[in-house]
This record gives sequence, structure tokens and C-alpha cells, in this order.
Amino acid sequence: MPKSRGQVLIGQAGGPTAVINQSLVGVIETALDHRAVGGVIGSLHGIQGVLKGELVDLTRERRKTLEAVARTPGSALRSVRKKPTEAECQQILEALRKLDVRWFFYIGGNDSAETALLLSKMAADARQDLAVMHVPKTIDNDLMVTDHCPGYPSAARFVALAHLGDDMDSRSLLGVKVNVLMGRHAGWLTASSALARVREDDGPHLIYCPEQDFSIAAFCADVDAVMKRLGRCVVAVSEGIHDKNGNLIGASGERDSHGNQQLSGSGHLGDLLVAALKAKLGSKLRARADTLGYLQRSFAGVVSEVDAREARRVGRFAAEKALAGCGSHSVSIRRKQKKRYRADFQLTKLDLVAHEQRCMGAEFFRGSNDVSPEFIEWLRPLVGKLPKMGHLEEVRYEAGG
Amino acid sequence: MPKSRGQVLIGQAGGPTAVINQSLVGVIETALDHRAVGGVIGSLHGIQGVLKGELVDLTRERRKTLEAVARTPGSALRSVRKKPTEAECQQILEALRKLDVRWFFYIGGNDSAETALLLSKMAADARQDLAVMHVPKTIDNDLMVTDHCPGYPSAARFVALAHLGDDMDSRSLLGVKVNVLMGRHAGWLTASSALARVREDDGPHLIYCPEQDFSIAAFCADVDAVMKRLGRCVVAVSEGIHDKNGNLIGASGERDSHGNQQLSGSGHLGDLLVAALKAKLGSKLRARADTLGYLQRSFAGVVSEVDAREARRVGRFAAEKALAGCGSHSVSIRRKQKKRYRADFQLTKLDLVAHEQRCMGAEFFRGSNDVSPEFIEWLRPLVGKLPKMGHLEEVRYEAGG
Repeated sequence: MPKSRGQVLIGQAGGPTAVINQSLVGVIETALDHRAVGGVIGSLHGIQGVLKGELVDLTRERRKTLEAVARTPGSALRSVRKKPTEAECQQILEALRKLDVRWFFYIGGNDSAETALLLSKMAADARQDLAVMHVPKTIDNDLMVTDHCPGYPSAARFVALAHLGDDMDSRSLLGVKVNVLMGRHAGWLTASSALARVREDDGPHLIYCPEQDFSIAAFCADVDAVMKRLGRCVVAVSEGIHDKNGNLIGASGERDSHGNQQLSGSGHLGDLLVAALKAKLGSKLRARADTLGYLQRSFAGVVSEVDAREARRVGRFAAEKALAGCGSHSVSIRRKQKKRYRADFQLTKLDLVAHEQRCMGAEFFRGSNDVSPEFIEWLRPLVGKLPKMGHLEEVRYEAGG
Repeated sequence: MPKSRGQVLIGQAGGPTAVINQSLVGVIETALDHRAVGGVIGSLHGIQGVLKGELVDLTRERRKTLEAVARTPGSALRSVRKKPTEAECQQILEALRKLDVRWFFYIGGNDSAETALLLSKMAADARQDLAVMHVPKTIDNDLMVTDHCPGYPSAARFVALAHLGDDMDSRSLLGVKVNVLMGRHAGWLTASSALARVREDDGPHLIYCPEQDFSIAAFCADVDAVMKRLGRCVVAVSEGIHDKNGNLIGASGERDSHGNQQLSGSGHLGDLLVAALKAKLGSKLRARADTLGYLQRSFAGVVSEVDAREARRVGRFAAEKALAGCGSHSVSIRRKQKKRYRADFQLTKLDLVAHEQRCMGAEFFRGSNDVSPEFIEWLRPLVGKLPKMGHLEEVRYEAGG
């Protein structure tokens, strides 16, 4: 291998999305086609693969396989939730030197951007020839700077389709239906349920996000008011809702090494809210809760086309810029036009993205239990066309008429 | 209205499905086109609409609206879970006489067939000119006689797609994932998760149905064995699993007027199983549970094409036969050919279907925690083609290679 050609290393971290492999393939295909690249290595389970020597040779993958992988949910290189210690960072940098890796692409959320920032700083201090690129993904949509995050539009589409159908289900048997959505600090995914509304009485009728304090008493009163108006109430609530002191309503206690509490993978919050409703509004109330859980990020066959295309382009853009010598960065999506959706990509400084969280702005809320028309207008082009629900006219039957 | 023409009345009952409105529209369009039919009345919320006089004139619906309704999940005429008393049956028959209803179509599961049987017997005793047709639907697939039930293939498709994606998610972050599926007495829907398996190590790795006794100890041992082999384990478990004494593992206490216990709309069972696994295999185990809940029957945009077509044809068949004077019956689907799927429809006596439940036969199980290849072969043509998941070859990287 001539000295002038270096190696590319790629890893994936955090929760997978429906389109995270589009970004992976975008990096791979761009790297494979670049003359400065000697090889493309995949690290299994993010940085853990480098630490444990679990590496795969991505130059050996056929293009047809890569295309199939791009259309597959989950992280094809596996994932990890791990914040490296300083000693581990040293170990990673040492391994990358030995492998002659000059470009490291880490596809993940704000925790992965933090890891990328750490590694890039230490590499710079040691004058190691290494660019660390953070390639954004997260269904939570909580990264700074970018208009939205790859992965979010597909998850939002899943949530919208679920609520479209659930509203029809709710019309059939009435009562209260609570849907618990992913999002520990930011309500983006919960808010996307609003796309299911077409007619005036369509659900979700109440939307609660972690950006606003949650009170069980106010929640019960809100539900009661909708029940009195419509005889049914569909509620979309974020797993991360908390009281005015910041205490999570649905906390279970488990934490990862980034300090994040486990909220998903449990029906606790939904059951708690249903119990509160029955205690307040009467035990005979038909109230049910679904926690949409991991299906939001992994369901096979529900993808936003805009999202799939952008995720691929984000990967390509990151690789093109890194291989052109831009140095360590993250990538953000910039919305160019409001009316007819168009977007392009920009480099973003890692320290603007690392570990930071972007919540929904005040302009995207309306009162304490709903989103604004501005939010829906912002979201709609990302999610794509939704199926139209049919409703009977329900002309009252008149005997002898 | 000339005396020779009678009225048709239609109602929907029980849990909705993705295609129950196909059957509704199949009945309506056949009735509208028949010269013996003077009018087509919809009863809102099943028999409750007749009791309360909440009736709609379905002759006033446009064909375009009906087509849109047919493609919409949920019960367009709303639904009910209600077993009528004898006095209520008398009241219903009296109302039908006044409306000159000669054909009553009740779209529902085995509880609705029971209601249809009751009404048809009392009408016969009173020499009332009334045919009561039960039009089958249920995602639980637990009706007698029929090869399968309209609504089940679409729900099975949802479950298969969820497990296709969830298996990729499980590969990314490892650990145990428990998915709780609908089905209180029969495991048909839980078993359909097996369609997600393509490769030898694909999940679900363990499948538990209510047809077999469930033991927490055996479950923990089963999971432990899979974890030791693969480092991950995806489990599909029915909400209706019970111990050897018949006690439901995930019971919550609420019952409807047919005596059915509420199992759905709660994350209780999943949380209980995860807690049991952590107690037995260690609290550090990454174990998560999702309860797929009402999405299984209502998710907008996931429909089996075979199911949609058959549900429409079942509605038409029921109407054709009833209007031709066949008397009160249910309808069943008969699989005509095994190799290349083809089916036709038959009349079935109501007392063979009413209140009875069909569970999976012993030939559809393999051991205590899996389904047989015969089951998968039986199910596959009903669900339709599933997307192919892409996997990297994962050729181990050799330095200097």
C-alpha cells in the first residue's frame, strides 16, 4: 500500500434508525471511489470494535449487498452505548495509527458527537493525522444546528401512521387511549403524532412533550374535557415527561454510561397514566395505553423517502468533505426553502453538537397540551404523503324516508 | 316502498381490524345492487345502534366514499362489546320488524356469532322473516371451521414486519427483547412472528403461545440458553399465556360483558417478564419489552393484499347468499389448494362458530417454545411478500491484507 493512501474506519453508535445504514453506505461508496483511500474498515459495535479488534473489511462487500443493507433498519455494523475513558481514547488512537486510519466516521447522536470531539482533540494534541467525522442520526431529532436529524422523519412517519389508524380504532370503541412515544428530553417524535389530524375531531386530541412541565391533575382535567366533548380521547405523550421539579413521571432507574435513564422498553408510564385516569374519572372508564417502543425506530417497511435520500447524502457529504481535507466536523441539514421543501448540507463544528440537546422551540407549541400549526407545516414535507382515511357520511336514517 | 322489497341492516362488533370495512363495503355494494333490497341501514356501535335508534342510511353514501372506507382500518360503523340480554334481543327483533329489516349482517368474531345465533333462533321461534348473517372478522384468527379469519393476515403481516425490524435492532444492541402480542386464548398472531426468520440466527428465537402452559422458570432457562449461543434473544409471547393451572401470567382484572379479561392496553406482562429475567439472569442484563398493542389491528398502511381481497369477497358472499334465501349462517374460507394458494367461501352453521374458539393444533408447534415448519408454510401465502433484510458479509479485517 503506497504511503499516500490512508484507511477509512466507520462505526455506528446509539439507537439505530430506519435509515442509519443509508448513511453508512453513503460513506462506504464515497470512500471506495476515492483515490486517496487504501481501504475501508468497519468497526463492530462502534468504538468497542476498535478496542477489541473486532474489525471487518468493507472493501469486500458487493455493491448489491450494500444497497440491500442501505434499505435495512438497524445498525448493520452493530451499535454500542459507550462513553470512552481517556485511557480508552488513547488506546483507540493508537489502534487507528497502527491501522493507518486517517478518516474515522462515527454515525450517531449527540453522545457519539461527544466521543468524536474527544478523539479529534486528543488526535490534534498528539499531531496525529486523523479527521473524525460525526455523521448525524437520531429518531429523537435533538441535535443542535441541523434543521432535522436523519432518522427522525421515518420515525415520525411511523408515529403518524400509528395515530392515523389508532384514531379510527378509538372511534370504534371510544374511551381514552394513551400512546407513549420515544423522546426523553425533546418532544419531536411525540409531536409528530399531530400529522394524523385531518378532520376537526381527529386525534391525537392532547399532546404532551418534555419541553413543558407535566401535571397528573391537569392531564386528568384535559382528558375529562375531551371526553365530555367527543366521548373519546387519544393522547400522545412523551416517555420523558416530568413534573415542575424535573422528576420523570415514568422513571425506572436504569442508566447507561452516558448517564441517560432507561425509559423505553417498559410499559410503566402508560400504565401509570391509565391508573391515574381511572382513579380520577372513574374505574369504569375504558382507558388503554400503548407504548410504541422500539417499533418507532426499527419497523421494517416504513421509511420516509426524503429521509432515506437525505441520510444517504449526509453520509456521502461527510466522506467527500473529510477526504477533501476539511478536518473533524459534524454535518447538518439546512432547509433552503420553506414553501417547496429543498435542503442542502453543511459542515458544523463538533463542539456545537457534542452532548448538546435541541428541544422544540416555544413557537412549535400551542398551550400546554398541543403543537402549533407552524410545527405541522415544518414537519409535513419531511414525512411524505400519508394514506387518506375514509369516513362514512352517516346520514341519519329516517323510517319511510 | 313495495312490500316485496325488504331492508338490510348492518353492524360491526368487537375489536376492529385493518380490513373489516372491506367486508362492510362488500355487503353494502351487493345489497345496493339487489332488486329485493329496499334500503341499507347501518347500525352504529353494533346492536347498540338498534337499541338506541342510532341508525344511518347507507344508500346515501357515494361509491367513492365507500371505496375509501373499505381501505380504512377501524370499524366505520363503530363497534361495541355487548352481549344482549333476552329482553334486549326481543327489543332488537321488534325494532327490525318495524324497520322491515329482513337481512341482518353482523360483522364480528365468535361473540358476535353468538349474538347472531341468539337473534336468529328467537326470530325463528317468532316466525319473523329475518336472516341473521355472521360475517367473520378477527385478528385473533380463533373462529371455528374457517381456514383463517379475515383481518388476521393483515395483523400477522404487521407482526412479521415488526419482528423483521426488531431482529435488526436486536443485532445492533444485543440483550433480550420481549414482544407481547395479542391473542388471549389462541397463539395465531404470536406465532406469525416466525415469518420474520430468514437466516438461521434470525429472531424470534422463542415463541410462547397460550395453547401451551407457560412457566417462568422454563422461560428464563430458554432465554439463558439463547443468550449463551447468540448474545441476544428476541422473544414473541402471547398476552394470554398462563401457568399449568390456567392462571393468566399477565392478568389485570378488568372484564367485558362477554366475560373476557382485559389483557391489551397494558404493559404489565412485558414488564413482569423482564423483571423475572433480571431476577434470574442478573440485574445488569439488557432486557426490554414492547407490547405491540392496538397497532396490530389498526396501523394505517399495513394490509395483506390477500386479506383485503378476501374480506371484501366474504362480505359479498354473505350478502349474495342471504339475499338468495339461504337463511341465518356464518361464512368460512376454504383453502382449495395447498401449493399455490387459492380459496373459496362456504356457508357455515352459526352454532359451529358461536362462542367457540379455535386454537392452534399440535401440528403447528415444535417443542414448548417454537412453531413448526407446517405452520409457516400454512401462513406464508396469506401474509404476502415481506421486504428482504440486507446483511453485511462481515469479512474479518486482516491488517496488511
